[in-house]
Amino acid sequence: MKIARLGELGREIPVVIAADSAGTEISYDARPVTATIDGAFLAGGGLAALRDALDNGTLSVLENADELRIGSPIARPNNVICIGMNYAAHAAESGALPPEIPVVFLKPNNTVAGPFDAAPIPPLAAKYDWEVELGVVIGREVNYLSTLEEAADAVAGYVIANDLSEREYQIPGAAGQWTKGKSLPKSTPLGPWFVPKEDTDANNLQLRSWVNGEPRQDSNTADLIFDVPTIVHHLSQYMVLEAGDVVLTGTPEGVALSGRFPYIQDGDVVEVEIAGLGRQRQEFFRAGITTAGTNNQGV
Amino acid sequence: MKIARLGELGREIPVVIAADSAGTEISYDARPVTATIDGAFLAGGGLAALRDALDNGTLSVLENADELRIGSPIARPNNVICIGMNYAAHAAESGALPPEIPVVFLKPNNTVAGPFDAAPIPPLAAKYDWEVELGVVIGREVNYLSTLEEAADAVAGYVIANDLSEREYQIPGAAGQWTKGKSLPKSTPLGPWFVPKEDTDANNLQLRSWVNGEPRQDSNTADLIFDVPTIVHHLSQYMVLEAGDVVLTGTPEGVALSGRFPYIQDGDVVEVEIAGLGRQRQEFFRAGITTAGTNNQGV
Repeated sequence: MKIARLGELGREIPVVIAADSAGTEISYDARPVTATIDGAFLAGGGLAALRDALDNGTLSVLENADELRIGSPIARPNNVICIGMNYAAHAAESGALPPEIPVVFLKPNNTVAGPFDAAPIPPLAAKYDWEVELGVVIGREVNYLSTLEEAADAVAGYVIANDLSEREYQIPGAAGQWTKGKSLPKSTPLGPWFVPKEDTDANNLQLRSWVNGEPRQDSNTADLIFDVPTIVHHLSQYMVLEAGDVVLTGTPEGVALSGRFPYIQDGDVVEVEIAGLGRQRQEFFRAGITTAGTNNQGV
Repeated sequence: MKIARLGELGREIPVVIAADSAGTEISYDARPVTATIDGAFLAGGGLAALRDALDNGTLSVLENADELRIGSPIARPNNVICIGMNYAAHAAESGALPPEIPVVFLKPNNTVAGPFDAAPIPPLAAKYDWEVELGVVIGREVNYLSTLEEAADAVAGYVIANDLSEREYQIPGAAGQWTKGKSLPKSTPLGPWFVPKEDTDANNLQLRSWVNGEPRQDSNTADLIFDVPTIVHHLSQYMVLEAGDVVLTGTPEGVALSGRFPYIQDGDVVEVEIAGLGRQRQEFFRAGITTAGTNNQGV
């Protein structure tokens, strides 16, 4: 079972995608079960209800699914929580040692975008970079978890994310806080699908990225320094995790920060893919100023 | 005009507080104008509507206001954005030079609490610290602002905040990201009141804090390294600010991190006050484990 949200931004409808008896994937309108896919849906047993509806044949086929925009499969989370440098080879290409405990930072929740939405390069950005990541969707509110089993149980499922990052803003900033490079508009494309944890093995998923068709990242979640239960357990010691929160688990080697590839340019096409979780494709354009006046970033 | 949200957590009602002709402060039930005080209210001209209702005498007095819990005056923001080391003397006591550009980090939006709510010390925390701060409430969505005047215009008003911070979690963490020390449950008490910008001069407000009645911080927002318009303008170059977002502008010297005072202990009472924005009082208790099992923070 895969779950998507299809339609114009802010008007997405929930859709379940499942194979029929011939193995053909069919999209079903999930609105009889829920108005959207969010924390309340996940915490309220929505996944089981959707699975029941699918098994009972009570959902209608959505005939025009292919014509609709694909939105983030999870409606705006309360918090987007990120793990940094969680693949040893990426830590090395960033000039750092592998961390001994998880590195944690946050992205604003308004950075979430659809997986095929046109992607703005910030007006004055010089070092905009891609990061394919396994995203974990939390299924219920947890805090101070005591075991890794409880942590695994708090996971609802997975999405693919591109954690777009502006390196000039992220790294040389005062006091080393990464926030300014991790907060840019539409810098967290999610989806195309949410996949419940029962339907994938998060410990063994190939992650890959391309720029203009040329390969960049190619690793496997088996190489995560801190695996998903360890991350969720760790985060819960420091914050209340809530249903619908998205945890990005870090990116593997092969980003522009390494110095081996150019940063994203106007007109570039970036694709990111995780086996079973789908593939994103963003065409980048240099953003203009969206409010009155000229941009004077850097003040 | 001061605005509050009174009542049990999650069931707060909006209240306007204003002086009558004799100078006595009266609390009025604002529900005829709005169901709550949040981003949609602020972006939709709610402050002007409330002021009109107050001037026209159409609001009823809320007789039992004194008996109600005081909640955060702003319902859960989308994002809580913070400026670090924005007073020179505090940067010095933290062992750092004053920043040349604003230091930016985020807190999870579920850290917001009422100003008098009992405050948990995390189960294994050894260095829990207070930080009185001027909080800026954003009034409309802005991005890539071009002038300081536009930035000032995007501000709806002000609240007082206590930016509770766990220093062991904040500072020695891998790669220097502060998130783990800034995300703890109920670590952002806001209020008691929201004050519209027209009703206060944010450039000259005394900020003070006490622990068990003994003075700790005592400074003035005139000493901010980066003032409010500069902060809002700067942030807008890196993220989309939205109505109802809260920006904490940094804390002055006089926190436990300085080494001059002990960290918060079980049973301590912390008070923080900003002239015109009100005074908070939190009794601290050592939190137990809120889910099954024992806490093993540090994994």
